[in-house]
Amino acid sequence: MTSVTTRSDITTLAINAVRVLAMDAVQKATSGHPGTPMALAPLGYVLWMKHLRHNPADPSWPDRDRFVLSAGHASMFLYGMLYLTGYDLSLDDIRNFRQWESRTPGHPEYGHTPGVETTTGPLGQGVGNAVGMAVAEAHLAALFNRPGHDIVDHWTYFVASDGDIMEGVSHEAASFAGHLRLSRLIGFYDDNHITIEGDTDLTFGDDTQKRFEGYGWQVLRVADGNDLEAIDSAIRKAKSDARPSLIIVRTHIAYGSPNKVDTAEAHGSALGDEEVRLTKENLGYPSLEPFHVPDEALAHWRGARERGATIQLAWQHKWSEYSKAHPDLAQELHRRLKGELPPGWEEALPTFTASDGSTATRAASGKVINALAPRMPELVGGSADLAGSTNTIMKDAGSFSADNYAGRNFHFGIREHGMGSVMNGMALHGGLIPYGATFLVFSDYMRPPIRLAALMKQHTIYVFTHDSIGLGEDGPTHQPIEQLTALRCIPNLTVIRPADSGETVEAWRVALKRKDGPTALVLTRQKLGWIDRARYAPASGVARGAYVIAGATGGKPDVILMSAGSEVAAILEAREQLEAVGIHARAVSMPSHELFAAQPESYREEVLPAGVKRVAIEAAHPMSWHRWVMNDGVVLGLERYGASAPYERIYEELGLMAKDVVEAARRLTGL
Amino acid sequence: MTSVTTRSDITTLAINAVRVLAMDAVQKATSGHPGTPMALAPLGYVLWMKHLRHNPADPSWPDRDRFVLSAGHASMFLYGMLYLTGYDLSLDDIRNFRQWESRTPGHPEYGHTPGVETTTGPLGQGVGNAVGMAVAEAHLAALFNRPGHDIVDHWTYFVASDGDIMEGVSHEAASFAGHLRLSRLIGFYDDNHITIEGDTDLTFGDDTQKRFEGYGWQVLRVADGNDLEAIDSAIRKAKSDARPSLIIVRTHIAYGSPNKVDTAEAHGSALGDEEVRLTKENLGYPSLEPFHVPDEALAHWRGARERGATIQLAWQHKWSEYSKAHPDLAQELHRRLKGELPPGWEEALPTFTASDGSTATRAASGKVINALAPRMPELVGGSADLAGSTNTIMKDAGSFSADNYAGRNFHFGIREHGMGSVMNGMALHGGLIPYGATFLVFSDYMRPPIRLAALMKQHTIYVFTHDSIGLGEDGPTHQPIEQLTALRCIPNLTVIRPADSGETVEAWRVALKRKDGPTALVLTRQKLGWIDRARYAPASGVARGAYVIAGATGGKPDVILMSAGSEVAAILEAREQLEAVGIHARAVSMPSHELFAAQPESYREEVLPAGVKRVAIEAAHPMSWHRWVMNDGVVLGLERYGASAPYERIYEELGLMAKDVVEAARRLTGL
Repeated sequence: MTSVTTRSDITTLAINAVRVLAMDAVQKATSGHPGTPMALAPLGYVLWMKHLRHNPADPSWPDRDRFVLSAGHASMFLYGMLYLTGYDLSLDDIRNFRQWESRTPGHPEYGHTPGVETTTGPLGQGVGNAVGMAVAEAHLAALFNRPGHDIVDHWTYFVASDGDIMEGVSHEAASFAGHLRLSRLIGFYDDNHITIEGDTDLTFGDDTQKRFEGYGWQVLRVADGNDLEAIDSAIRKAKSDARPSLIIVRTHIAYGSPNKVDTAEAHGSALGDEEVRLTKENLGYPSLEPFHVPDEALAHWRGARERGATIQLAWQHKWSEYSKAHPDLAQELHRRLKGELPPGWEEALPTFTASDGSTATRAASGKVINALAPRMPELVGGSADLAGSTNTIMKDAGSFSADNYAGRNFHFGIREHGMGSVMNGMALHGGLIPYGATFLVFSDYMRPPIRLAALMKQHTIYVFTHDSIGLGEDGPTHQPIEQLTALRCIPNLTVIRPADSGETVEAWRVALKRKDGPTALVLTRQKLGWIDRARYAPASGVARGAYVIAGATGGKPDVILMSAGSEVAAILEAREQLEAVGIHARAVSMPSHELFAAQPESYREEVLPAGVKRVAIEAAHPMSWHRWVMNDGVVLGLERYGASAPYERIYEELGLMAKDVVEAARRLTGL
Repeated sequence: MTSVTTRSDITTLAINAVRVLAMDAVQKATSGHPGTPMALAPLGYVLWMKHLRHNPADPSWPDRDRFVLSAGHASMFLYGMLYLTGYDLSLDDIRNFRQWESRTPGHPEYGHTPGVETTTGPLGQGVGNAVGMAVAEAHLAALFNRPGHDIVDHWTYFVASDGDIMEGVSHEAASFAGHLRLSRLIGFYDDNHITIEGDTDLTFGDDTQKRFEGYGWQVLRVADGNDLEAIDSAIRKAKSDARPSLIIVRTHIAYGSPNKVDTAEAHGSALGDEEVRLTKENLGYPSLEPFHVPDEALAHWRGARERGATIQLAWQHKWSEYSKAHPDLAQELHRRLKGELPPGWEEALPTFTASDGSTATRAASGKVINALAPRMPELVGGSADLAGSTNTIMKDAGSFSADNYAGRNFHFGIREHGMGSVMNGMALHGGLIPYGATFLVFSDYMRPPIRLAALMKQHTIYVFTHDSIGLGEDGPTHQPIEQLTALRCIPNLTVIRPADSGETVEAWRVALKRKDGPTALVLTRQKLGWIDRARYAPASGVARGAYVIAGATGGKPDVILMSAGSEVAAILEAREQLEAVGIHARAVSMPSHELFAAQPESYREEVLPAGVKRVAIEAAHPMSWHRWVMNDGVVLGLERYGASAPYERIYEELGLMAKDVVEAARRLTGL
């Protein structure tokens, strides 16, 4: 192994404190990942003490540099930095690592611990998040900076492990970042040659330098992760280049541990009391007492607070100057960073009338986006190479590109997973509301970042079109069946599947107003008839998740017909046919199960009174409807894959027509 | 544009026939992707006529070369090849492109069209499938070939589009293939500079050559996709190298079309009648009649049948020799390729007794795998860098590596998506039953290939461990909540979540016997008590999906308690407590919703008699249980994310204990 520096200078002591805290916290919890924090401690020292522009006293200062620990399992590295540099995180918090309601959970959680910029753990995500943060910085800088006023002027750093580098999402995000020449993005690849199963040689032989050079990144190397000067010099070089940079740092997992350094064992398990002791001795650490940080080491680290205060103050001065010189811009940036929507934006929402005729909800959505675009400049987004098909282009808003960071249309490329992960970074950065589009079936490619957006309560919007067998000829590989259920069960994701143009407008309204989590809009490829709201209940019912779109004659229904999206037309037609034969049917449009579930019991009972039998229909897996149809109810859905053919034929063959609803209702009620 | 060869030689005519069929089929369907087949026609000609060892008369000949069209949207390229070379696909089938029940669906579907080796369309998947096929070839060759008897001796080719190259799964699969030095794998990258949104420059600037060299591939270039000699020479070079090869072919989308060549428009839309006519004229095609293939061109292509028959015959001779020299091996290979399980394998299944004590179901699964390993050599697999945690290592079976293709333990790396996609290729190739493991929460990373396995009815087995908040300290990023529901709604996937060691054995039995689709085994990290089957019903009930594990006293229950996996212990305990206060409770273990749903109504009524109120509990999203608890039933589940803490604490805090079941049952029944 690399020889251990035993010099007792303050730098070494400070670095070893990170290692000690990591070892001790994992040991006390008897679970966690000590090896990587121990390896990364010198990098942490150089980065956090010499380069990272941050103020521990104000983790939400908008122009701070962002630090993303993509290797989230090494959470004790981040907690160590946060505690030592003086964030609002105590030594008791560290002692409480991985305990119920502690501020130091197993993996870093955004919103839970001050200074944690994003939730990481699922590998590869942090790389995408960092790219998204750099995107946001570049975009806001292009929009708001003025000569002599670099008011948006920060860097994004990330640390990636072998796992992050192996995951496909890192390919998508890095390729995207390279193409965009995001020079404010600096990544560290913790090249330790160890994964959980053992040596990386077991499964991984990439020349990562070549790979990232292929993406257009500058790639630098630090041969010894303990070489502070080499780390410092690499960061300087990274900052002076016009490309994003990857610094490959050769480290040794569990550095300092005489018996576990460079072993897979040190990856995800406590070292053991004895090895902890031996390591502290080997490192020449002044005390064996758990969680001991010598006063002088702490004082040294805490210098970060003073430096941070100075940096932020300097920026505040810049901000004052800027506010004087460009008051409108300052006010606008302030509004955007606070996440406040522009006044009067709802007035810009379009209305649709009979003269618009039949419209696909994707097309209606495109109109909403374009109506809002001029009034809501923070709305930015694009698609995974399906801009035209998903109707997500904002006219006259330009394309975000290396030559035009002010552009608002994002060409994410055929990279759904990367798109989701980059969107999370953009939202986390602040100042933007990102939307991202693809076909609904390909939401499967981006579930990990959707889940994280929901977990982190981020304001992202997914536009998922081609939402059923209604897409027709592309066939079963492109026809979603299970995706609606699979999205509806993600906690804190709101899924809305509007039935017509009017509901599409309302769906966007909900998605934009919502601030505590993501929304998925689920839209058709095929045209849907315009629902005459003079005759039927207003589309504003979308906000409550479900509403009686057409009541039964006489008020008391014999049967309730329920649906969402394109199949609402079928229940409206079925209702007519049933009423024509004297069966009183209520039609309920239910665009969002989650919004409806959140309504008071009284409203839910009003829409779906107990004791009335129910028929639900959706061109999708029936699973999510069982909660709502209850006993003896019927769900017409699909528990099979679709087929390639013109869509009208598929609907008919698979029994998802108004006549099928009528038949089911009659069988159910015996009327 | 590149000048169009107008020479009327037979080769050109044959190649243009592919273009004409693609144009005409898309035109007739008024949907589809004509541009890429037109560009790839020369490549198709060289590959299918000069290199691909295939026999159109016998698409299931085991030693055929495999061809994977990862760019599945270019399906008319493949259908063209299949028709022209004489597979069982008629010109009427081609005319019927994208119609109900036709054999030429929008994207190629395995099992639907003779000669289609895998279902493609979702981008990137075909690259992984091809890697899996090459893995299977290498493995079977290592096991079965003998000096002088190269009985397994074929190549795998794939065609990838920009989309395949951009998708993250291509990174994972290509990195894996490069590390394994799969020299029998040859890919073509259709470098046409066009995606749906426009020029690839919009979003894609990779140096793909450098990237693939970084993976350890040989990368070759063909500067002109119409240069037959250059294509031929590149394939020869690819075959002579010890690495996998990627041949980057510069093509022109919609080659031949005077007005649409090199445009995004030609990607996914019919060219239009007029442009079709102009193109045929421009190509000097002898007829404007739709679907016209000149007799001499067809005859030329159909030479493939004779060559194919000869090649297969030669192999049959080799096989006869091999069968004489190595009868046991021949018999064994024959058995494996037929997908027959070895006789008596079930005898190898372990039994667990009280003396085994508390066991995590992942550990029980590990014992099953190891008990079967010697008796079932086709069982191969591994994990996405979680072998130890998922208990998926087969002792003494060796690691599959570049130096040992006979190894049965696969180190898939931190590449869940790639793992799923490679497994599909392995299963499609035949001769292997692949299993792949990761934590349940990371099933999200690999949903696209799981879906395709289900759609293609492939025999793959997923081992998903750490299946709930029961994993404890790793926290919400690692604790699955919605994943069970999200898997249970995938059509044709069987999900089994066993309650103890005994049910784990039965779950494996089901998974191995099932031949028409994949199975996901969902297993705990934490230890579960051994369920005494002398006292409770036998675990063989797993095969029926749900069974009465403990009846109510007196037979007629006041309430039914239902659960799966680790929470079955809670219902057994709750049942005791309820019976103790005179409430008659039946406990139903329901490890597989899908298997239970497939039972006859009579059995389902027997297990869950109508009119008896039901309480279900699972440490997961409740959505999938509503179908089974019905009216007034209660589901104790989680509609929130978990937390980082020791797991016993999380269970208690989130209300998933026996006492919560008792309380719910009493409230529900009013007893």
